[in-house]
Amino acid sequence: MEPIDIETLADPDLRDPVLVEGLPGVGHVGKLAAEHLLEEFESTLVRRVYADEFPPQVDVDDEGVASLTCASFHAVDLSSPTPTDIEEEDDEEAEDVDDSGADADDEVAHSDGDGEKVEDGEASEDADEEHGTVPTDRDLLVLTGHHQAGSNKGHYQLTEAFLDVAEEFGVEEAYALGGVPTGELIEEHNVLGAVSNADLIDSLAEAGVEFRGDEPAGGIVGVSGLLLGLGGRRGFDVACLMGETSGYLVDPKSAKAVLETLEQQLGFRVEFAALEKRAEEMEEVVGKIQQMQEGGGGAGPGDEELRYIG
Amino acid sequence: MEPIDIETLADPDLRDPVLVEGLPGVGHVGKLAAEHLLEEFESTLVRRVYADEFPPQVDVDDEGVASLTCASFHAVDLSSPTPTDIEEEDDEEAEDVDDSGADADDEVAHSDGDGEKVEDGEASEDADEEHGTVPTDRDLLVLTGHHQAGSNKGHYQLTEAFLDVAEEFGVEEAYALGGVPTGELIEEHNVLGAVSNADLIDSLAEAGVEFRGDEPAGGIVGVSGLLLGLGGRRGFDVACLMGETSGYLVDPKSAKAVLETLEQQLGFRVEFAALEKRAEEMEEVVGKIQQMQEGGGGAGPGDEELRYIG
Amino acid sequence: MEPIDIETLADPDLRDPVLVEGLPGVGHVGKLAAEHLLEEFESTLVRRVYADEFPPQVDVDDEGVASLTCASFHAVDLSSPTPTDIEEEDDEEAEDVDDSGADADDEVAHSDGDGEKVEDGEASEDADEEHGTVPTDRDLLVLTGHHQAGSNKGHYQLTEAFLDVAEEFGVEEAYALGGVPTGELIEEHNVLGAVSNADLIDSLAEAGVEFRGDEPAGGIVGVSGLLLGLGGRRGFDVACLMGETSGYLVDPKSAKAVLETLEQQLGFRVEFAALEKRAEEMEEVVGKIQQMQEGGGGAGPGDEELRYIG
Amino acid sequence: MEPIDIETLADPDLRDPVLVEGLPGVGHVGKLAAEHLLEEFESTLVRRVYADEFPPQVDVDDEGVASLTCASFHAVDLSSPTPTDIEEEDDEEAEDVDDSGADADDEVAHSDGDGEKVEDGEASEDADEEHGTVPTDRDLLVLTGHHQAGSNKGHYQLTEAFLDVAEEFGVEEAYALGGVPTGELIEEHNVLGAVSNADLIDSLAEAGVEFRGDEPAGGIVGVSGLLLGLGGRRGFDVACLMGETSGYLVDPKSAKAVLETLEQQLGFRVEFAALEKRAEEMEEVVGKIQQMQEGGGGAGPGDEELRYIG
Repeated sequence: MEPIDIETLADPDLRDPVLVEGLPGVGHVGKLAAEHLLEEFESTLVRRVYADEFPPQVDVDDEGVASLTCASFHAVDLSSPTPTDIEEEDDEEAEDVDDSGADADDEVAHSDGDGEKVEDGEASEDADEEHGTVPTDRDLLVLTGHHQAGSNKGHYQLTEAFLDVAEEFGVEEAYALGGVPTGELIEEHNVLGAVSNADLIDSLAEAGVEFRGDEPAGGIVGVSGLLLGLGGRRGFDVACLMGETSGYLVDPKSAKAVLETLEQQLGFRVEFAALEKRAEEMEEVVGKIQQMQEGGGGAGPGDEELRYIG
Repeated sequence: MEPIDIETLADPDLRDPVLVEGLPGVGHVGKLAAEHLLEEFESTLVRRVYADEFPPQVDVDDEGVASLTCASFHAVDLSSPTPTDIEEEDDEEAEDVDDSGADADDEVAHSDGDGEKVEDGEASEDADEEHGTVPTDRDLLVLTGHHQAGSNKGHYQLTEAFLDVAEEFGVEEAYALGGVPTGELIEEHNVLGAVSNADLIDSLAEAGVEFRGDEPAGGIVGVSGLLLGLGGRRGFDVACLMGETSGYLVDPKSAKAVLETLEQQLGFRVEFAALEKRAEEMEEVVGKIQQMQEGGGGAGPGDEELRYIG
Repeated sequence: MEPIDIETLADPDLRDPVLVEGLPGVGHVGKLAAEHLLEEFESTLVRRVYADEFPPQVDVDDEGVASLTCASFHAVDLSSPTPTDIEEEDDEEAEDVDDSGADADDEVAHSDGDGEKVEDGEASEDADEEHGTVPTDRDLLVLTGHHQAGSNKGHYQLTEAFLDVAEEFGVEEAYALGGVPTGELIEEHNVLGAVSNADLIDSLAEAGVEFRGDEPAGGIVGVSGLLLGLGGRRGFDVACLMGETSGYLVDPKSAKAVLETLEQQLGFRVEFAALEKRAEEMEEVVGKIQQMQEGGGGAGPGDEELRYIG
Repeated sequence: MEPIDIETLADPDLRDPVLVEGLPGVGHVGKLAAEHLLEEFESTLVRRVYADEFPPQVDVDDEGVASLTCASFHAVDLSSPTPTDIEEEDDEEAEDVDDSGADADDEVAHSDGDGEKVEDGEASEDADEEHGTVPTDRDLLVLTGHHQAGSNKGHYQLTEAFLDVAEEFGVEEAYALGGVPTGELIEEHNVLGAVSNADLIDSLAEAGVEFRGDEPAGGIVGVSGLLLGLGGRRGFDVACLMGETSGYLVDPKSAKAVLETLEQQLGFRVEFAALEKRAEEMEEVVGKIQQMQEGGGGAGPGDEELRYIG
């Protein structure tokens, strides 16, 4: 295997595509947000990026089939919502926190083999009404995965590879989604912004993104940071949208806040019911932990619930 | 020395060979299992794999002769059992936990110089009866060693090199042996499975391997994981057989459980007396430790016994 | 991006230039000293050095614009002081500890586009009188940045790249600025020296630099050490000037002590009011911490002040 | 600089030379032993090996002159003793623990510029009598330095480079000197051996080296281990001589024990007065520490003494 090995699964023509990155990080905010897009819209798996800078690891799916850890690019059709049916999924959904790679790949089933998006006209029209999808003439190219690189050098090399893929699809605009830690549990999740060039600030500020001088103080690290830094040097218009989050828990609420600014910025609509349900579940767990810590006695939370935290 | 340096010691023709990997990991389950195969059957050392990703280390044998740390491939003839004589070996056996590399190489003495397996007809027929060996028309290619690679990149490179060797010998089917930690001392050692493609599940399930959705939760790391991931991408049929083990102790019982599923799957028979003896010794040590922790007073276990633990 | 990527922003002819390096280290002494030179004189950003050995990180400026972390070379005109107006900057200045990269680049505004230094004759004459600038016929090439390399190998490669840039500009003489930890709070900040060849000792000793046998005991590490080691091997005359500092706090006083020896050595004059003000602020913070530790009660120092420490 | 950069300082013809390696390790036994040889005999610095796997560091000598950290090869003339005058050196000697590189290089002063050893006939004859030097028709090539490599890969690459140098000089026989930790303070320092091939065992056993089965249990790591492993693969006759030492302190006594076996093995004689003096000083320090721990009151050991420990 080459140090970085890019597998092509489909090569659809994308309409003025926008790169949206959501890899693991603070509160898994970016990852939750990006995966939510894959769950709520029709998507096509177009690239897998394997790298010897990723952990030497396979992920095992619900059948027991292992696949080499990788980052994935999905083409997302914002006009074809496939909203999660909350009632039906219920318990199943509760187990998905660490399973997005498999989930994401399953979505390929919604498309046909050669990467053409399914044109399921009536269904999506219904969906439009039901979920308030607004027409959009742009596609998303969503980058997700379970890991970041294992070394400084690896982060640079992987980000360059990601930008290469984005360029192949004609991307000129990118959003790196992530979280910014506040260090305490918070009610309101502001979204902090950073951009590769100053021209991008005004429209993002209008979409509700906050720009605070010199924040985050420690800079932005990992792939999100390098998309700004290396993407900016290549001439991409890149913004990093960082949802405030405690930093201690997986935070679906912060992911929702980030996606709301992205909705505003790109002019699309997405259902949040699944993210909200997950947020409620998180809150129950947090509540039980707080009870336990206050010596509230009684049985602790079951395994079922605790798995949410990390 | 090249970053990875493969030394050829013999090049026998193998009959539809099956790769069996057992490198160090949780409970040393895979390593114990693979080394047990080398001890119980006639084997030929065919390759040594040196790598600058291994620790900068030599292992010293019982004479004081040092040899550069490496991984080894042995061709194993399943129809030529060389069962360990438990009574005779006794104390000597007790010191072998970390000494398999040397042991394994000693086995070369059972074969002649050019790698042809000894055809000691009568002896092996006797053995057949005594130890219940069943006829088999396949050979094993057993991969063992004392170390895994020291970096992400190194794991990928080494696993590719191991797969190259396997391909040279015409391997199409591989079993990565290992342990999966339960976090507590257990009586029954189930064997958990993961596969490179779904077609392999049925026969393994019949052989007693359990497939549980999304387990192990953290994926499978190291060479075992990459044999699945990279081997699968090359078209090998790979299964990982993971014996449940506490994760705190070297676990010969778990190794036996793993080998029992392999026996079923490949249709061969192996003696377990040596592993069982080692398991008993481990249990004695554990018993003494528990006594000590319960303040049972008296002398602690001697050095002789404690060396078993790690 | 290449592993090390040097961006050329200007290529002015420098007069017998002297390399002055101030990257992060003990007490941030070298970094504070080098940045002080950029603040007090007219300077031109001439090179940015990006490297995949730097952290995968962008720094965010006061607008929210992110830039890839890098090391920077500025050409500094010692005859064109642009002294910081302490009164005016005041609070703003208090926030600059970790913001020098941006500051430094702002200085480009003082020069015109093609790297020619502004020849603002009368103004600089005034400045001469006011700030006691002495005429000098040499320019400085000041190397600053927010990071050192992340690995042994990276330190060597980056330092070689820095020396390449210095050679391009005709540098033959270099000063690596840094701190040497004493382990306790000190009043007087001696400056310890080490040189690439013994001929440099006398003039530095005259300038107030101390040479003590075999100190610092642990050698000199990082870019400062390698400028001596690799620079010396290339034939540069290199001295390392290390201000004594506790090692626990950012230390503007030690930076001033280091710059005073550099003034003597190179025959220039620089205003210290801004460094002195920063030192006073640090002392206030230290005083409050000491009060707190002594249980002096009362409110602790505000965030505003505490950010100084690290 | 190349990743490994070998500087040639002299190219004398050596008589059937024997490589003796003493780099830092357990108890600094190997380093002390190798440096003692450089102090007690006439020697010529023949090679410096720089490597970007070494720490990014310079060492500062007693004048304040910095030199890039490196490993050094000295040719040692066993028939030209330059015994340390204990009385005269006294305090100076006490400061030399971490200063061997500089010391060693100073020895070049004993030889003339082109690497020819000084033929100071009468003086060395006197020395013969005085210090019991026995005639020998072999030279030593002594490898010392302040550091080992910083990564697995680096250890392999450096050791290969060291072996290349040894081959250039016609070395066929090598001794890696080191310590083996016992975990407790000991009175008698046995010397444990390991060899690259079994033929070497007998003569070493006669010289007093012990060979114990499978010891040291964890193998031998670092350059000493790889000299055995990689040297053995190249066909060198390599032995590792490991002096027993507590593992907690720099141990001149263990170094002496190792050198005594080397004397026997190679048939030369060396003065031990300097090592013995250092050992006494260590014992004083240890005694004082023990007193302190026993609450013996009084002033603790001064800085002068404590610096010996690490």
